[in-house]
Amino acid sequence: MIKKSNNEKPLKKANAKKITISEFLEQILKGNITYLSRAITLIESTKTSDKVKATILLETCLPFSNNSIRIGITGVPGVGKSTFIEAFGSFLTGLGKKVAVLAVDPSSSINKGSILGDKTRMESLVNDKNAFIRPSPAGDSLGGVAKKTKEAIILCEAAGFDVILVETVGVGQSETLVQAMVDFFLLLKIAGAGDELQGIKRGIMEMADAIVINKADGDNVKKAQLAKTEFSRALHLYPLKGNQWSPEVTICSALNKSGIENVWHIITDFLQLTKSNNCFEKNRINQNKNWLKQSINQQLQDDFYNNEKVKKELEQQLQNVEKQSTTPFEASQKMIEFYKNI
Amino acid sequence: MIKKSNNEKPLKKANAKKITISEFLEQILKGNITYLSRAITLIESTKTSDKVKATILLETCLPFSNNSIRIGITGVPGVGKSTFIEAFGSFLTGLGKKVAVLAVDPSSSINKGSILGDKTRMESLVNDKNAFIRPSPAGDSLGGVAKKTKEAIILCEAAGFDVILVETVGVGQSETLVQAMVDFFLLLKIAGAGDELQGIKRGIMEMADAIVINKADGDNVKKAQLAKTEFSRALHLYPLKGNQWSPEVTICSALNKSGIENVWHIITDFLQLTKSNNCFEKNRINQNKNWLKQSINQQLQDDFYNNEKVKKELEQQLQNVEKQSTTPFEASQKMIEFYKNI
Repeated sequence: MIKKSNNEKPLKKANAKKITISEFLEQILKGNITYLSRAITLIESTKTSDKVKATILLETCLPFSNNSIRIGITGVPGVGKSTFIEAFGSFLTGLGKKVAVLAVDPSSSINKGSILGDKTRMESLVNDKNAFIRPSPAGDSLGGVAKKTKEAIILCEAAGFDVILVETVGVGQSETLVQAMVDFFLLLKIAGAGDELQGIKRGIMEMADAIVINKADGDNVKKAQLAKTEFSRALHLYPLKGNQWSPEVTICSALNKSGIENVWHIITDFLQLTKSNNCFEKNRINQNKNWLKQSINQQLQDDFYNNEKVKKELEQQLQNVEKQSTTPFEASQKMIEFYKNI
Repeated sequence: MIKKSNNEKPLKKANAKKITISEFLEQILKGNITYLSRAITLIESTKTSDKVKATILLETCLPFSNNSIRIGITGVPGVGKSTFIEAFGSFLTGLGKKVAVLAVDPSSSINKGSILGDKTRMESLVNDKNAFIRPSPAGDSLGGVAKKTKEAIILCEAAGFDVILVETVGVGQSETLVQAMVDFFLLLKIAGAGDELQGIKRGIMEMADAIVINKADGDNVKKAQLAKTEFSRALHLYPLKGNQWSPEVTICSALNKSGIENVWHIITDFLQLTKSNNCFEKNRINQNKNWLKQSINQQLQDDFYNNEKVKKELEQQLQNVEKQSTTPFEASQKMIEFYKNI
């Protein structure tokens, strides 16, 4: 399953801007991660000229994508996401798979110096030829990053990655965004807080295809097993999902690399079920439909804000809001009217 | 400071739909919370006819708003947000203030049966004449709820509420959304996890105007004091904010109602500083500018998706995506072209 490139073309920074689309495509299909990385930077760019190029590149890569399993991994800070991804990713490359790790939030653990500097995080995965780790651009807004993550998945797939891990943090909006782009959603937890169960009852629990209780090591094993029982019971209160999958709970110690194989077993069971009942494909098609709408919304905004006349008038209205000679409502209505009459 | 209404008009459900804007305005200005509640439901409605009415209502309420302090309260599940809001809210009504509590996320603690059923949460606040608690509509998306929260703030202010508490959960997008609509951002924590500090270093910590370490009671007091030192040290690594405010850390026990007064002292210090250096007003103006843009974006989408021809063509393109005879990119470009030529 490894598509290791033997003739990776080295890339000089100086001419990076001049890479043609066919060069990009050729090198990405060869699994050249320098070019892959560069291509992701291109799709993240906000320049109009880059955007046009990025759209064409994506369109050309799309036929080569889709052959992967996309796994969303979430959990609040402190559950050991980095360690889990390190252990799980290494396990998968050990099986001969190519693994890409993408971050959705600027606060993702893979952004915390895993690449630059602090080598204690994901050390073996960073140095693994069959792994590709891509942090999200620092300081970027959540919405922006997540928007491009979907595109980054496509590029990684075209580059031959079999497993795409999409990491996200917390209990917020990001989970919904990630769920809309993955096949399987994994919730990482640690044992020992009844309150936590309470806190996540709504929303996240319903999204999870599996709950993995991490840090089941040392004195924690018993607590983790208790938590497993508790979560299993909670999960069974929910009706079966539309795809007939019944979410599973398992325990692991990413630190000791124990229980990791079980996680993969659960995922392969999921794949077997949802591919046989066509729900896997149906889900991806529904995701594409959502993607269409997101893409439209983005384009509507781009067309508006990139219009020179709009820019000028908006500047004026913003000044009026500043002087408090108008309200945001009134100004927005005026802007929309103005735009219609251009 | 209490604007208690002595002649609240009772509202029959049957004729609720027929309330005129001037009736709404009159009753809201009297502090009639039945009408206030009804008005929030109106602004949350997605019906076109309701939207028009809602916009006019907001526009008429706007001149009567702005006279409050808007406080965002965040913290992961388990830190005791409900208990804190109960204690803090009751403290404020005890000072003669009118307090409104709004939830941003569908998973907010005030949504968890505080109103219906489980009376153990915020019991005294729910029964407090000078408090108004508004959960967000169940099952609604985060973006949708947050969008209307800004409008709900305006209505609550017009109804004479002096303090608006906006509750949100977690580490995600919601914090950014809430920060964009409040004057003061309060992060609730509990003591005892070094990892937690690590986890929130980026983003949330920089947003916080105060960190309140809750559950400083019983055996926890020492741990809470240590955490206070740790957080204070971490906060001092950040440069002073633009408004010259230096974020503060304090401990409290919402359960025992101790330390609550300190939280309010910090907020009044903040108000004194930012009102004297005009940063309070500047911040609200900047928020209004953002609001203008959000309002434009919403209108652009509404205009697009409510167009009958667009609806028909979109249906066709969605079918093409379903049949996989097109890609989301291509379909979105076609839709935009189609829209331009209508």
